[in-house]
Amino acid sequence: MPFDYIPPLLQDSSSKIILLVMDGLGGLPVKPGGPTELEAAQTPHMDQLASEGMLGLTTPIRPGITPGSGPAHLALFGYDPLEYEIGRGVLESVGVGLKVGLGDIAARGNFCTLDENGNISDRRAGRIPTDEAIPLVERLKEVKVPGVTTEVRHVKEYRFAVVMRGENLHPDILDTDPQHTGVPPHPAVAQLPVAEPTAVLFNQWIAKANQILAGHQKANGLTLRGFSTDPNLPTFKDSYGLNAAAISVYPMYKGVASLVGMQVIQFKGETPEDEFEALKNVWEDHDFFFIHIKKTDSKGEDGDFEGKAKIIEGVDQALPQLLGLKPDVLIITGDHSTPARMKTHSWHPVPFLFWAPATIRPDDQDSFCELACGHGSLGNFPALNTIPLALAHAGRLEKFGA
Amino acid sequence: MPFDYIPPLLQDSSSKIILLVMDGLGGLPVKPGGPTELEAAQTPHMDQLASEGMLGLTTPIRPGITPGSGPAHLALFGYDPLEYEIGRGVLESVGVGLKVGLGDIAARGNFCTLDENGNISDRRAGRIPTDEAIPLVERLKEVKVPGVTTEVRHVKEYRFAVVMRGENLHPDILDTDPQHTGVPPHPAVAQLPVAEPTAVLFNQWIAKANQILAGHQKANGLTLRGFSTDPNLPTFKDSYGLNAAAISVYPMYKGVASLVGMQVIQFKGETPEDEFEALKNVWEDHDFFFIHIKKTDSKGEDGDFEGKAKIIEGVDQALPQLLGLKPDVLIITGDHSTPARMKTHSWHPVPFLFWAPATIRPDDQDSFCELACGHGSLGNFPALNTIPLALAHAGRLEKFGA
Repeated sequence: MPFDYIPPLLQDSSSKIILLVMDGLGGLPVKPGGPTELEAAQTPHMDQLASEGMLGLTTPIRPGITPGSGPAHLALFGYDPLEYEIGRGVLESVGVGLKVGLGDIAARGNFCTLDENGNISDRRAGRIPTDEAIPLVERLKEVKVPGVTTEVRHVKEYRFAVVMRGENLHPDILDTDPQHTGVPPHPAVAQLPVAEPTAVLFNQWIAKANQILAGHQKANGLTLRGFSTDPNLPTFKDSYGLNAAAISVYPMYKGVASLVGMQVIQFKGETPEDEFEALKNVWEDHDFFFIHIKKTDSKGEDGDFEGKAKIIEGVDQALPQLLGLKPDVLIITGDHSTPARMKTHSWHPVPFLFWAPATIRPDDQDSFCELACGHGSLGNFPALNTIPLALAHAGRLEKFGA
Repeated sequence: MPFDYIPPLLQDSSSKIILLVMDGLGGLPVKPGGPTELEAAQTPHMDQLASEGMLGLTTPIRPGITPGSGPAHLALFGYDPLEYEIGRGVLESVGVGLKVGLGDIAARGNFCTLDENGNISDRRAGRIPTDEAIPLVERLKEVKVPGVTTEVRHVKEYRFAVVMRGENLHPDILDTDPQHTGVPPHPAVAQLPVAEPTAVLFNQWIAKANQILAGHQKANGLTLRGFSTDPNLPTFKDSYGLNAAAISVYPMYKGVASLVGMQVIQFKGETPEDEFEALKNVWEDHDFFFIHIKKTDSKGEDGDFEGKAKIIEGVDQALPQLLGLKPDVLIITGDHSTPARMKTHSWHPVPFLFWAPATIRPDDQDSFCELACGHGSLGNFPALNTIPLALAHAGRLEKFGA
């Protein structure tokens, strides 16, 4: 349980909590003295919420640590990523929409190039482009192994994910990627006797896949890494008493949300308006709503400062749709920083806006940006505190002790 | 030991530390843009100390957690309430001034109503008023059980506390309250064999008590909960090398202070002036002084915003009495927030003023209120840090390592 002391304190409430995550929200000035993306964006609605609410800066994992998307979201959900590990195979698989149920074994796959002796000459198959890899992945879907089913999906360039489903499978299997060239891929080797039958099944799958790939010039082999299964995380319901819904355009975030037991909402469209409309449609059915905006991160990774600011402005413009629902608690934040200047995720603390009209103690900040968040009354704090704070302001926690 | 690394660092000093706790000090604005109770109060002395000292905001237990009085004080004293649990029976007993020594067993009692079949029809005896319950508690004092002594004291309405003292008693006994109606109270049942003799003794006490209560219309039965004993907490002397005194009008806080080995000072009166005078009288005998002001919390729970502000002003007016003693360290804070607007304890961080003229690094805040504390140089921090900080500024800690 993320917080052992919380379940005994939970009390019923009809209150509603919205957690709006703009992926990679935190930014940097492009030049000294310049604004960050969030400072450059015109955000009248968020600024109004900032003036009524509290600001702060969160540390997703630990100071100085740049998070991947999976751990960053786990942290926001209250699950310390250093304690609750999700296997890389599972993350890669849920990231492309593959379901990893309890007992299913997921792995990340790389196409590689083998020389005439069967030794690896390129661990990434010359980084073959996506359009070249997709037909190969289609062929891998034909591989059948008796007694189990397998599902394969392309990820990006030379990468794919595979999930094996069956009885009594076990994930304690070493990577088949030897991590250097000039040697053949390892076979799947069980680390524990209980995983040996699973290793045998994966070796059967690998052998058949290799037959299919044999003719290809670059991608004539493969390696598998990160064998793992559903981490069986405590659910939002058990941890927080919350009946949670997840609204996201991208499979990765739906996947992480589903791992903590959120119901993933199906909807059409991909704009903030579409996502907020989807939330509105299930407003009565849930008490916690996680909404994920992807494009802030994508623009940041593209190095597109203006584009990222525009995405933020688009979210701000759509915000009245959410406010009209009169949530009891509204949190607007990111999972991590993705400064356009760096074109990648970073460790910088993340702007955090907390709004809860019934119980807020406002600070004296009136705009939503990194600088104001640094002066906010919430201070610098771990992202892990987000949900406990939301539960308190939503009237969902009883007093601790007499 | 609350901080294992502190005892080896302790050094002698004649310095004096005062910890002034205004219970439930933290507040909220009643309307947007309005002041909190502390902001509304005229506090020239505290504001002067704020301008000379440092401010911050404390989290008593964990973010979002609303503390009871017992855990909140333990935290201020440096004992993490999630690590050092005080049984509910002990808290209830010390709260009404019953002493719970090592090996004594304390329990919380409820009067209840039994129907003609001996089943509970009302778990709280119709919430009988205090003046009706007190005579019943007086009768319970007559109950004698061979081999042990028992002490009973009324708490409030249908609630009382009982402490059993004797040889080889053990608290691992299940609640006799079945938590619902339509069934009889459970007997006292030992969870461990070592507690069986104690359960037998409590069942004897219950049987005799029931005979006494039999005639009463509403309160013709009772249940006992929270069997517990002195938690045997490390003392202030052992933990911090401090010879501590506690000055409080209310038994609850005397009780918690005595559990960590503070000497409870007897005195007459109940105003801040009376309490500060009592402190002055024992100034030479101790090096740490915990003073507890209750009425800030009481007014907060009454929803009396103005009344709470007035209590704060009264403390401020009396403050020169303390300052005249020239303490080396003076801390003014609360154990938790009790916003008049909420009429109850809350999770909001607590204003914290730290003053230590010889070694202070002042910040740029010059008034004692939530907003200024949010900008103070101490930042947001766990209440657990209070005593180590005080020890340092009191010159009581040697360097760690060479």
